[in-house]
Amino acid sequence: MSSGRIELSLPTQLDRMERARVVRDATPRLRDEHVTLSHGSGGKSSRALIESIILPAFNNALLDGSADSAILRMPNDSERIAFTTDSYVVSPLFFPGGDIGKLAVNGTINDLAMSGARPLALSVGLILEEGLDMAILRRVIASIAAAAALAGVPIATGDTKVVQRGKADGLFINTSGVGAVPNHCRLSMDLIQPGDAVLLSGFIGDHGMAVMLAREALELDADIETDSAPLHDLVADLLAAAPDTRTIKDPTRGGVASTLNEIASRTKLAISIDEDRVPVRITVRGACEILGLEPLHIANEGKLVAIVPRVQADAALSALRRHAFGADAAIIGEILREPEGMVLLRTGIGGSRVLDMLVGDPLPRIC
Amino acid sequence: MSSGRIELSLPTQLDRMERARVVRDATPRLRDEHVTLSHGSGGKSSRALIESIILPAFNNALLDGSADSAILRMPNDSERIAFTTDSYVVSPLFFPGGDIGKLAVNGTINDLAMSGARPLALSVGLILEEGLDMAILRRVIASIAAAAALAGVPIATGDTKVVQRGKADGLFINTSGVGAVPNHCRLSMDLIQPGDAVLLSGFIGDHGMAVMLAREALELDADIETDSAPLHDLVADLLAAAPDTRTIKDPTRGGVASTLNEIASRTKLAISIDEDRVPVRITVRGACEILGLEPLHIANEGKLVAIVPRVQADAALSALRRHAFGADAAIIGEILREPEGMVLLRTGIGGSRVLDMLVGDPLPRIC
Repeated sequence: MSSGRIELSLPTQLDRMERARVVRDATPRLRDEHVTLSHGSGGKSSRALIESIILPAFNNALLDGSADSAILRMPNDSERIAFTTDSYVVSPLFFPGGDIGKLAVNGTINDLAMSGARPLALSVGLILEEGLDMAILRRVIASIAAAAALAGVPIATGDTKVVQRGKADGLFINTSGVGAVPNHCRLSMDLIQPGDAVLLSGFIGDHGMAVMLAREALELDADIETDSAPLHDLVADLLAAAPDTRTIKDPTRGGVASTLNEIASRTKLAISIDEDRVPVRITVRGACEILGLEPLHIANEGKLVAIVPRVQADAALSALRRHAFGADAAIIGEILREPEGMVLLRTGIGGSRVLDMLVGDPLPRIC
Repeated sequence: MSSGRIELSLPTQLDRMERARVVRDATPRLRDEHVTLSHGSGGKSSRALIESIILPAFNNALLDGSADSAILRMPNDSERIAFTTDSYVVSPLFFPGGDIGKLAVNGTINDLAMSGARPLALSVGLILEEGLDMAILRRVIASIAAAAALAGVPIATGDTKVVQRGKADGLFINTSGVGAVPNHCRLSMDLIQPGDAVLLSGFIGDHGMAVMLAREALELDADIETDSAPLHDLVADLLAAAPDTRTIKDPTRGGVASTLNEIASRTKLAISIDEDRVPVRITVRGACEILGLEPLHIANEGKLVAIVPRVQADAALSALRRHAFGADAAIIGEILREPEGMVLLRTGIGGSRVLDMLVGDPLPRIC
C-alpha cells in the first residue's frame, strides 16, 4: 500500500428508516434502574450513563464528554502546578452531614490547598458495582456537583468503570486535582523552627465519629456530623495574615496525632501539644471514651494544622477565626528542639506523654 | 483564649529506652505477607507499606511521601495543562504481554498524548482488597515503575486505600495525569473536514483478545499479547510530520468502531472505512470469529486513530511507520459529508454496512 488515497462511495441501500434509527441511537437515553456491566463498556450504554447523569450534573466549560483530557489554562502568576489524588471508599456511602461525593470533592480540594495552591479543576473516576441502584448513583453525582459548585472548582474530566456484583462495595470514587501555586508561595516543612506555634482550625474527630456512628453495627447514638469542607479560601486568608506560615496539613486518616508525628519525624524536631487547648466537642469526646479511642487519632475532613512563626501566630489565629471554617481555631502547642522526632501531649493534670501515630485501624474505610 | 502564647516544658520522665523505641518506630518496616485493613489506616502500617514498597519503586524527585500534592514546574512554551483520569479494573491482573500496572501507566499517558500534551507526571491511587498477597502488590508496583521509567514520566503522587475482603477484586488502580500542551498545538474534532484521511497506527484488537483469552473460563488458546504502549513519542512524530492533524484518539474500550462513531456523532459528518485496509492479526481475527465478535469493537491499549488533511496523509503515514509503535500503520478510510453522524464499513465484496458503537459488553473489565 504505497498511497494513502482510497475511493469510497456512499451506500445506496440505506433507506430513510434505517438512517433515522441510527441518528436517534446517537443520543441514547438511560432507562436502567440499576448499573449493569454494559455501563462500563465504553459503548452505547456507557454513553447513555455519562450523557444522562454525569455530564448534565457537572456541566461546565472544561468538561467535554468526548475529550481524552481536559485542557486548563495556567494563570499568569503561577509557574508551578500542584497535583494530587485520593480514592474514597467510605462506608456507609451516606452519613450525617455528608456522603462519599462531598468527601471526594472537599478532600482533594484540601490536598491542593495544603500545598498553597488555588484549585483549578478536579477529575472524578468512578468504580461502580453491577446492580448499584441508579438512584444512589444520581444522589452521589448530585452531591459531587453541589460540593464542586460550592467550592467553585469545576469537575473537568472523568472516567466510569463497572465491576461485577460482589467485586466492589456499591461505589468507589477517585478524585484527582490540579491547582496553581502562586509564585510567592513557599510552604515547606523544612522551614519549621523551634518556637513556631502549632495552630488547629477547629473541633477534631467530627468526621470519623460521624461515619463510625452511622454504621449499623454500632448502637451508640449521638448528634455528630462530618466536618467535610473545602479549605482553600481559609488557607488563602491564613497565608495573607501570616505570610511566613511554614506548613499546612489536613489531619485526615490517622488524625491530628498522625499529622503531627509526620511533621516531627520529617523535621527531626519535637512538637508539644497542650491537651486542654485541643478543641473536641463534648459529644465526640463522649463517644471516644465509650469506644476507647483517642480523639487525636480520629479523622477530620474539614480541619487544618498550621505551623506558623511565633510572631505571626496571633495574626494567623485571628484570620482563621474570622472564617466560618476556622471559627473555633486554637493555638494548641509549639515546636521544640527535642526530643527529636517526637510528639508530646501535655495533659491537664500537669504530666505529659508521648502521642504516637495511629497503630492498627480502629476505623477502617473512614474516607 | 485571647493570646496564642502557651508555655510547655519538656517531659522529664521520658527515659532513654522509651525514646529509643519511639525513634525506631518512626521508620516502620513492612513484615506482612498480606494486605490488612491497617495498611489503609493512614497510621503506622500505611507508612510502612508506602515507605517499604511504593516510594522506593517510584523513586523520583517529585515524589514526596509526606506532601499532600506534588509540585510540578510548567514548561516555558506551554500555557495550557492537559488533565485526565482513568481507573483500571482489568481481570485477570496479569495477562500475556502485560498487567494492570503497565496498562494504568500507558493508558493515562495516552489520554494525555491524544490531547497533544507532553506528559509531565502521573498519580497512582490504589484500592486494595484485604488479604491481597503482598507479592502480587510488589509485582504490580514494579510493573508501574517499569512502565513509567520506560515512558520517561514520573509517578509524582499517590494514595492507598484498603477495603475488606470481598469488597474489591484484588486491586484496582486509578492513574491520573497532567501534561503540558505546546502553545502551537491546536487539535480539535471541530476542524475535521470532508476529504480528511483516517489513519490507524497498527493491528487492532490485540489487547482485548489477550485479556479475554487469559480468562480461565475460555478454553481458546492463541498467541496474542496486549499492545499496551505509551504513545506520546509517536504522537510527537505524527504532529511534526502532519502539523495540521485534526484530532487523535486512542480506541480503547468499545474499540475503533466506538471511537469513529464518537467522531462522526460530534462532527455531524460521515466516516467511511475500507474493511480490507484495517490491520487485524490473523490470530485475533480467528479468535473473534469463534467468539462472534467484531475486531473493530475490541479494545486497544497501544493504538491511535488520527484524522489528517488529505494532503498530509502520506507524510503522516510515513512518520507513524518509522516508529516502532506505528510500524503497521495504515490509511483506513476518509471523512465524508454524509450520511450525517454515521460510520460506514465498505466490505471486501463491494457492499457496505453501518458500523455502530458497541452495544452491550461482551468483554467486561478489559481495562
